[in-house]
Order: sequence, then C-alpha cells, then structure tokens
Amino acid sequence: MNKMAIMIALMISLMGSSSVGAGEMRSGGATAEMRFEGGFGGLWIRADSLDLGSSLPPNQKLYGIGEGSAARGDVDPLPSWNEGSAKRAILSFVSDVTSEGGPNYVAPEDRIATFDNDGTLWCEYPNYVPYLFIFDRVYDMASYHPEWNSTEPFSSILSGERTGAGSFSPGEVLEIYVATSSNMTAEEYMALARDWLDRSSHPDHGLPYTECVYKPMLELLSYLRSQGFKVYIVTGGDQDFVRAFSQEVYGIPPEQVIGSAVKHQFIEVDGNTSVVKLPEVQVVTDGRVKAEQIQQIVGLRPILAYGNSDGDIPMLKFATGGEGPSLGLLNHHDDPIREYAYDIGSSIGGLEEGLELAGEWGWEVVSMKEDWKYIF
Amino acid sequence: MNKMAIMIALMISLMGSSSVGAGEMRSGGATAEMRFEGGFGGLWIRADSLDLGSSLPPNQKLYGIGEGSAARGDVDPLPSWNEGSAKRAILSFVSDVTSEGGPNYVAPEDRIATFDNDGTLWCEYPNYVPYLFIFDRVYDMASYHPEWNSTEPFSSILSGERTGAGSFSPGEVLEIYVATSSNMTAEEYMALARDWLDRSSHPDHGLPYTECVYKPMLELLSYLRSQGFKVYIVTGGDQDFVRAFSQEVYGIPPEQVIGSAVKHQFIEVDGNTSVVKLPEVQVVTDGRVKAEQIQQIVGLRPILAYGNSDGDIPMLKFATGGEGPSLGLLNHHDDPIREYAYDIGSSIGGLEEGLELAGEWGWEVVSMKEDWKYIF
Repeated sequence: MNKMAIMIALMISLMGSSSVGAGEMRSGGATAEMRFEGGFGGLWIRADSLDLGSSLPPNQKLYGIGEGSAARGDVDPLPSWNEGSAKRAILSFVSDVTSEGGPNYVAPEDRIATFDNDGTLWCEYPNYVPYLFIFDRVYDMASYHPEWNSTEPFSSILSGERTGAGSFSPGEVLEIYVATSSNMTAEEYMALARDWLDRSSHPDHGLPYTECVYKPMLELLSYLRSQGFKVYIVTGGDQDFVRAFSQEVYGIPPEQVIGSAVKHQFIEVDGNTSVVKLPEVQVVTDGRVKAEQIQQIVGLRPILAYGNSDGDIPMLKFATGGEGPSLGLLNHHDDPIREYAYDIGSSIGGLEEGLELAGEWGWEVVSMKEDWKYIF
Repeated sequence: MNKMAIMIALMISLMGSSSVGAGEMRSGGATAEMRFEGGFGGLWIRADSLDLGSSLPPNQKLYGIGEGSAARGDVDPLPSWNEGSAKRAILSFVSDVTSEGGPNYVAPEDRIATFDNDGTLWCEYPNYVPYLFIFDRVYDMASYHPEWNSTEPFSSILSGERTGAGSFSPGEVLEIYVATSSNMTAEEYMALARDWLDRSSHPDHGLPYTECVYKPMLELLSYLRSQGFKVYIVTGGDQDFVRAFSQEVYGIPPEQVIGSAVKHQFIEVDGNTSVVKLPEVQVVTDGRVKAEQIQQIVGLRPILAYGNSDGDIPMLKFATGGEGPSLGLLNHHDDPIREYAYDIGSSIGGLEEGLELAGEWGWEVVSMKEDWKYIF
C-alpha cells in the first residue's frame, strides 16, 4: 500500500486528519479453520496439528518449535517454506523468545506481531484490492448520484475513461474513498465488502481475492499464534474492509485489525443507537503512521513486523529499533511465474528503500521465488 | 470523568482533534492474581476458584453461572454483591448469553464488555486521580521550567493559589495535560505514573490509589473473563496512565485500555526508534467519543457496558441500543459512610441524566450502599 498511502498522505495534510478506525461483525472462525486445514493444493498442513509427521516427505528437515510444543517437536511448522535464511531466522527467533529461562525469553503477553495486509498476506497486484472495491462501489452507487455523471473523478470511472489506481490523483482517490465508505455503519459496510468479495475474482488467478492469500503466510500466522503471539494486521486499507474477512481468512478478529478509517459519529434514533462512518478521513495508516497507530492502539512495541513495501519501513524500524530480541521481514515479489515480479520501482507495492535498508537493519528479505514452495 | 471531559470537549474543538492513544509496558500479571486472591480484607474470593463453597456463609444464595462452569456451578461468583436486582440482572444476563443453544446465546468472540475507570472501577472522589497525577507532575517538572513561576495556569499550581480540578478552566486543564504528558515515550510516561502511584495515597482512605479499587468490580471483571468475555477499559483518563496499572490491578492488558491521548510521532535516532508523545491532544474519550472509539478500535458493539457518570451515557446507549441481548449498568455513589455520596449534581463524576434514563433504557443502577457488601 505504499504509493496509495504516500499519495493520500500528501492530501490528508490538506484536509486535517488523525487517528484510528473500526468495524462491526464477527464470523467464519470455523470456515477459516476448514480452509486452513484443507489448504489450496499441494502439501499444506496446519502448524499446530499433531498428526502431520507421517505426511512429511522423508527428506523434510524437522524442527523443534519452542515451549509447549514438545509433543510435536519434530513437525515442521512452516512446510511451505523452503530451507533458507528466512525460514531459519523465523524458527530461530521464535525458539529464542519462547525458551523459558533463555536470555531472549519474551513473556507471552509481550509477543506482539504486526503484519501488513496487501502484498504481505494476500495478492495486491495488479491493483490494490481495497481500491477495486471502492471503484466498484462508484458503479453500485451511481443511480443514487446522477450528478456523478458530470462530476470528476466519478464521471471518469463511470465512463470507463480512467481505470486503475494509477490514473487518479491522491485527492481524487481520497474523494472516492470517503464518498463510497461513509454514511452507514461499519456493519453495513462490512456486509457490502463481504458481498463484493464473494462476487469478485482476481483477473489473472481467477480465484476470489480471499483465496489469493499466501499459503506460507497463513502457516506463519498459525505458527506464531501456537507460540503465544498476538497477531495484528496493520494496513493502509480501510480497516472495516479488512475486518470483513480477517477472521475467516486469517483467523484474526476485528479488534486486531488496525487500518485506515473515516471518522465516526455516534447517533441515536428512537432508542436505537449506532456509530456511523462519516465522509471525512480520520487516518491513513501507512508509513510512520503505522508505527504511531501500533503504539496508540496496542500500547506495546511489536517484537516481529512483516511487510512488503517501503510504506512498511517505519513499522519494521519500530519493531527492530528498540532493545531486546526482534525480527523484521519483507516479502520481495520476485516470482514472475507463480505471482508477479513487480516491487522495485512499482507504483503498486513499491519496495526499493526497504531492500537497501534490510542489510543495515538485519531484516530478512523473503524471496517469494526462492523461499516459498507454494504461493497460494 | 464527566465534567473534566465536557470541559475539555469544549476546548478540543478549538484545537483540532481526533482519535486514539497508547502506551508501552507489561507487568504484574502474577501480582494481580496474588492481590486478587488475597483480597483487601473481609470475605473476598476469586470468582473462578473451585474451592470456595465451604467458605461461604450458610445463608449465601448459590448460583449456576452458565457454560463451562458446571464443576463450580454452586459457587457464587459475586460474593461481595448483596442479593438484589443488580446482582440478579448480571447473573441472569451472563447465564443467558453463555447458554449454548439458548435464544440469547452470544458467541465468545462477540462477548465484549466495556468499563469506565474513574468512579466505576476505582475511587475518583474527591479528585480524579489522573488530575492529581498531572498536577503533581507540574511540581516535579518545575525546575526545568522556570517560566512556569510566572505563567498561568502553572504559577497557580506552584504557588498553591489554586488546587483541585474545579479551580481550573477546561483550556487550562488541557494545557496542563499536554505539558506534563508529552515529549517522552509511553514507556517513560508509564514509569512516571507507576512511580507516582507507588508514592501517593488517597487523602481519606490512606491507601495507595491502586488499592482504592472496588472489590465487587474486581469480582465482576474476573467473573466476566471466566465466562469468555473480553473486557475493555474505556476512560476519559490518559490511556498510558491507566495502562501503567491496568494489568496489575485489573488483569486488563494495555491493548484493552482505550482512553484519552496526546498525538504520537515516530522518531528514529541513530538506528534507535521510538514513538513519542507530542504536546497536542489527540482524543478525549468521553461522552459520545467513548462509543465512537469503541467502534473504531474494537470494531464491535459491546454487549455489556458499565459506567458511573453522565459521560458514560453514550457508551451505555451504544451497548444497549442495538439488537440482541445487552446489559447496561451504572454505579450510583450513594454511600457516605464507606465511600462518598456525591454523584448527583457533582462537578466530579456527576450523574443525573443517567439516573433519569436508567428506567427508560433498562439500565441497572447499582447502589453502592445497598448492592455492595464491601466497597474496597
């Protein structure tokens, strides 16, 4: 969400701004587990299952995975990850911070891990999914807004003159965002998002977006949870949009999603109350705002942060720039066959400074081509 | 925190504003359990202990407490609460929403409970504790600010000319708040708060403020947790101040404290990073902002809300103004012997509209005099 947020950040200072956003809904825990256990093809197993050893290939290297895991100490918790420095770094770090009595032990309540969403947990190319949602919302809302046929930026969307995020200015994107994401409750918004997700699919992969999630990352989320970590999503996307599927797809509940948001207002009508989304930006959670929002909302410095674009750099710096053990990770989109090779110099999910800083800061650059057995 | 926040709310619109705040620290889980099990005197027992039946007076009415509690189904989880409509309402509500297959069953992930802090969980009279902290901070910081000797509102504090929250205007209180609560990290601020709490005590009760917590409320928090509720504090006080003791005193971790906050900024110095508190108000979490912040941060409508002043009304209305089962509760400070009788017409923790609305909205008014066996 790098460029989107940089663009928006330019604009937000003109509009006045500040903090946090939310949603309302809860569902699909069971679905998430089913999907997770079923996998999307190939060898894909639950990190916290006990009966997986026999399904591993005989040449599979086996790992101990820290406290509380003695019974399954010889099961690889990250079977979709190839052997390499990234996988070693993750396993070694988790083992370190969960080894009671060890020098790097971290109490469970301090095991906070923060993950970017677009490009880190699911596919963001060739277009950020939250963008596609709000652009489609313009079509869905057009009959209630006849004036949009002659008002930019809406008229360009409706006429098909401009398509794709890159053809709109930061201010125009903000205008589309607030017009299509407000004047309803978070619950209503999430229902719209859920409906849209159910009837949309990725242009190249042909799968629903909610299945264009990275299998190695689902294993990592599950592994971290099994080791006592509390996992947050910290995203430039609208947080109610992400909350519409985070529980089902990632097993992450709404209160562990921190994202961009419009302002909220409490209203009461005849004894019925709700908190509605207003057509005004509250916060764009990208760049340094990611670190600031983590501190504001979680109240703790993460010990693990994982992103994929330069907009995630402050989050990684926050996690790894304090005392004590920490781990920073970056997905490097370098697989033109199974996904895309796009991040260097891209207007979507651009990653350049992050690749330069990785060595200096000790972050692991995860080559999706080399480090992952499977992408989806 | 009613009047404080109303005053501040007037001011905040002049300063520009918006959302959320945070802290950094984690400690004392074990201490909290010890304190909780030890109690402060009198009959005080853990709600989730299994061996309490024999210590109950023979005339103690015994309750079943819903799912997962069969083994201790005959133990009163709220022994410091007298029989009455408030206790009945709580037990009945919890039993309802935890009865699997019942018409009012609520899935555990939707069992969100929100509690005000000052006057609800601990004593707020004769002065809000967060006020006392920032006023004392003026003394502590004075040697670094010689200009304060001739600058209001600081000079009045330093000369002793004005004492107590009521003698300062809303703008002055805000000015004191931002001057004394910024230019440091949340971790540093919490350490200051912790130190101040350790060396301060209540003027009448003679106990540290962290022991002026209401025993019946600690039992209620523990009971709700044992029944799968996730409990949040939603407070007009600075959230980092409350995070400095919430885990130890209430068993509530920092990420479940939502409060007032100054703005935050991410900074990096020679590879060390931190998020610092800026001298500018971000959000004052009182009145309708309580509901808005709950929606933004938690993303769910609470099913139980508990407050004590008119500033908590929107939070209670939000919890009880939707569909489905819900419970609203208000502490009524009507015990001049064991605590204070102050809330009607008070400038501290004023409760008037709430008492009028309680019948209409079905909220339980908890008489601290009649409903509680013990206060502390």
